[in-house]
Amino acid sequence: MANVNIGLIGLGNIGSGVVEIIQSNVDLIEKRTGVRISIAAACSRSKDKALALGIDPKIHTTDYRQVIANPQVNVVVELVGGYEPARTIILEAIKAKKHVITANKAVLARHGYEIFEQATKNGVNVLFEASVGGCIPIIRTIEESYSSDNIESIYGILNGTTNYILTRMSEGMPYEEALKKAQALGFAEADPSFDVEGKDASQKLSILASLAFDARIETEAYTEGITRITAQDLAYASELGYAIKLLAIACKDRDGIGLHTHPTLVPKSSVLANVSNEFNAILLKGRNTGELFLSGKGAGKLPTATVVVTDIIEMGSRTRITQRRFEKVTIKPFAKSKSRFFLRLDLANKPGVLAKITRILGENNISIAAFNQKEDAGDFVPVVIITHQALEGEMEKALSECGKLDIVKPEPVLIRIADL
Amino acid sequence: MANVNIGLIGLGNIGSGVVEIIQSNVDLIEKRTGVRISIAAACSRSKDKALALGIDPKIHTTDYRQVIANPQVNVVVELVGGYEPARTIILEAIKAKKHVITANKAVLARHGYEIFEQATKNGVNVLFEASVGGCIPIIRTIEESYSSDNIESIYGILNGTTNYILTRMSEGMPYEEALKKAQALGFAEADPSFDVEGKDASQKLSILASLAFDARIETEAYTEGITRITAQDLAYASELGYAIKLLAIACKDRDGIGLHTHPTLVPKSSVLANVSNEFNAILLKGRNTGELFLSGKGAGKLPTATVVVTDIIEMGSRTRITQRRFEKVTIKPFAKSKSRFFLRLDLANKPGVLAKITRILGENNISIAAFNQKEDAGDFVPVVIITHQALEGEMEKALSECGKLDIVKPEPVLIRIADL
Repeated sequence: MANVNIGLIGLGNIGSGVVEIIQSNVDLIEKRTGVRISIAAACSRSKDKALALGIDPKIHTTDYRQVIANPQVNVVVELVGGYEPARTIILEAIKAKKHVITANKAVLARHGYEIFEQATKNGVNVLFEASVGGCIPIIRTIEESYSSDNIESIYGILNGTTNYILTRMSEGMPYEEALKKAQALGFAEADPSFDVEGKDASQKLSILASLAFDARIETEAYTEGITRITAQDLAYASELGYAIKLLAIACKDRDGIGLHTHPTLVPKSSVLANVSNEFNAILLKGRNTGELFLSGKGAGKLPTATVVVTDIIEMGSRTRITQRRFEKVTIKPFAKSKSRFFLRLDLANKPGVLAKITRILGENNISIAAFNQKEDAGDFVPVVIITHQALEGEMEKALSECGKLDIVKPEPVLIRIADL
Repeated sequence: MANVNIGLIGLGNIGSGVVEIIQSNVDLIEKRTGVRISIAAACSRSKDKALALGIDPKIHTTDYRQVIANPQVNVVVELVGGYEPARTIILEAIKAKKHVITANKAVLARHGYEIFEQATKNGVNVLFEASVGGCIPIIRTIEESYSSDNIESIYGILNGTTNYILTRMSEGMPYEEALKKAQALGFAEADPSFDVEGKDASQKLSILASLAFDARIETEAYTEGITRITAQDLAYASELGYAIKLLAIACKDRDGIGLHTHPTLVPKSSVLANVSNEFNAILLKGRNTGELFLSGKGAGKLPTATVVVTDIIEMGSRTRITQRRFEKVTIKPFAKSKSRFFLRLDLANKPGVLAKITRILGENNISIAAFNQKEDAGDFVPVVIITHQALEGEMEKALSECGKLDIVKPEPVLIRIADL
C-alpha cells in the first residue's frame, strides 16, 4: 500500500493541521518514504471549514458513514475526539476493513480493548501515536524499540496544562492566576477539570501501561489532581531540593502492577524536574536498556498533526497487522504502594501538639526523615514533614487520626516523593 | 517475512548480547510482534566463543562468506566493527540480496552512500539504529517521526566516553585521572584518541545530518576534542552558569548546512547540561514539531544489543524498501559560523596588557559581554572573556594576533557557547 488514501473525519484544530501538512509536504513525503498520501474524503459538520482549507467540495461530506463506505478510502483518520461518535466511527471503519488512525486518548482508554480486538479480527491496523505525549514518539518506542525488552517502570509528565500551571506556580504565581493564564494561552479548556484533576494524565497512563506490560487494565487507578497544591508547597519543596510535577507512574514487579497519577516531589537533579511549561516527558526504564528519557511539546496543532501524518505514512509502509494481546494482570492496591512523603500540616501553636502528631505517625510505622517549622506568631503554624518510606494505607490511617484532632487544621497536604 | 533467519557475523560484546536476548526472549518477541527470530548461521574467529554462547556448532563458521551464501539466511547482522572487512561483508550481503543490519557507525560514516546505493539497487534494507546514540531510537525518530517535518537543527551528546570524562571533571577531577577512570570502567578504549578527539561524535553527526537533511555530506566537518579542556575551565563555566559538553551540532538555514563538533558551553538550565556520565542525548528541532529531546545509555552490551534486536524485528514486519536519497548540499565553511565564545587567556601580570588584547578583539569585530579576572600574584594570570556573537573566522584571526604577543601564554582556550 504505497498509496494511502485517507478519509479524514473531523476538521478541527488537529484535522486542519493534517490537511495543511499533507498539502505542503506531499511530495517531500513521497520522495523520502515512497508513500503517496491523498485525501480521498473529508467529513466535518461545516462545509465552509473544509472549503477554507482548500478541500475539494466533491470529496466533502457531513456524514462520516460516507467516508467509511467510500471504496477509495483505505485509511480512516478519526479526529473527532471524545467517546461518541468516535467509538462508533472507529468500530464501523474497522468492520469495513479500513485501517484506523486516531489521536483520541479518551476513546482508547475506555474502549481500547474492544477496538484492538475488532482490529485483530478484521485484519486491520489501528495507530494512535498522537493520543499520548504529543510529538514524543512514545507508542512507537514502546511497541518497537522495547519489543525485545521488559519495561520495569514509566514515569510520565503526560498533561501539558497542569505542567504549565505548576511551572508558573513554581515562580510564585497562585493556582487560580496560573490557570487563567493557561486558559488565555489555549493550554487549558474553559472547564479545566479533566486536566487539573489528573484524569487526562491517568487515561494516557492506562494506554502506555497496557502496551508496556501487555496488560488488560480494567480497574480505575488512583488519580489525584493539582488543585490542592499551593505556591507555598512548591516553595517548601524547592527549599528542600525538589520540584513538584504531576506524575503518571506505572511500575511492575513480582507483586503486580502499580498504577497511580498524582502530584509528586521530584529531586531537582532529575531530568523530569526540568521539564517546564506545556512540555510532556516520559522516563522509561527497561531491564536491558536502562533509562530512556523523552521530552517534547505535549500539544499544539502542528506538532500533533505531524504525528498523525507519521501514522499515515506508516500505514503505507507496513504490511504487518499488529496483534496486540493484553493479559489479565494484578493491579496492586494503592494502599500497598510505598513511597516517601511530603506532609504539610497547619498545627495549633501550643505545647504538646507535635508530640501528638509524631506519636500518631510512629504508631503507624511512619518514621520522620526531615522536619521544618518556621517561627510564626499565628494560631496555626505550617509544619512540613518529610517521611522515610511508608505505606499509603498506613499514611492514610495516620492522616485520618490526625484529622480528628482539633489541633490540625483541615485539610493536610500530602504529596508523594519519587526518588529518581 | 514473519520468520527472520539471521546470519550473525561477529560474536564480540554486542554479538553475544544479541544471542543472549534472542535466546531468552524469542517467544516474548513472537507473541508481541508476530516475528519469529532464528539464528541460522553465526561467524566468529573463535569457535569456543560460539559454543560458550550455546550456539549449535553445525551453524558456526569462521568464514563470513558461508554466512552470506547460506540460503537459510535472509538477514545478515554485521557486528564486526571498523572499516574492513565490515564494508566488504555488508556489500557482499547486499549483492546476495540479503537485508543488512549493522551497529557500525565508522563504516556508515565513510562508506554509507555506497552501501545505501547498492541496497536500493538490490532491493534490500539496511538498518543501523545501534550505530548512533546507543539505546536512543534516533534513526527511527528522524526517518519515521520526522518524515513529514523539516528538521532545523540537531544538538547531540553522541559520545559516552567524553561525556563521562567531562562529568568527572565538572566535579574537579583532572582530565588524566577522569580518563583513567573511564578506561577502568570500560567506557574508554586503551587508545582513547578516537573518542577524546571528537572523531567518534563527528562520524555519528554525519550519519544523523545525512538522514535529517537528505544530504550527501562529503566534506570533513570541523571537529575538536576535549583534550585541552581543564577542570579549571569547567569551574569557570559553572560559575558563569554553564556546563561544558562535547556537542555535535548540525543546523540548516538558507545558506546551507553547518556541521561541527566541539566542546561547548551549555546553559545549566538546558536539558543537555543535565546529561551526565556515559549517557547520550539528542535535541532535535523540527519546523512543525518544535523541540524533541531524547536521552539514554550511549553504550553497553545489553542496551546496544536490544537495539540490534529491534532492527531484526523490524526486518520481519515491513515490506517497504527504504529508498534513501541524498542530495548535494552546501556545507557552510566553519569560518562563517557564528556563536558567542568563552575565551580563557593566561596574561602577563603587568600594565597595558588588557588594553592590547581588547584592542585586537575590537578590531576583529568581537565585542566583550563579560570579563573575569581574579586577584593573582603570579607572572601570568588567567582571564576569562565571554564575547557577544562573533564569526569563527574573525575569532581565529584575533587569537592568532594575540598569540604573537609575548604577554599571552600559549595556548589560549576557546570554547563556543550554545544558547539553548
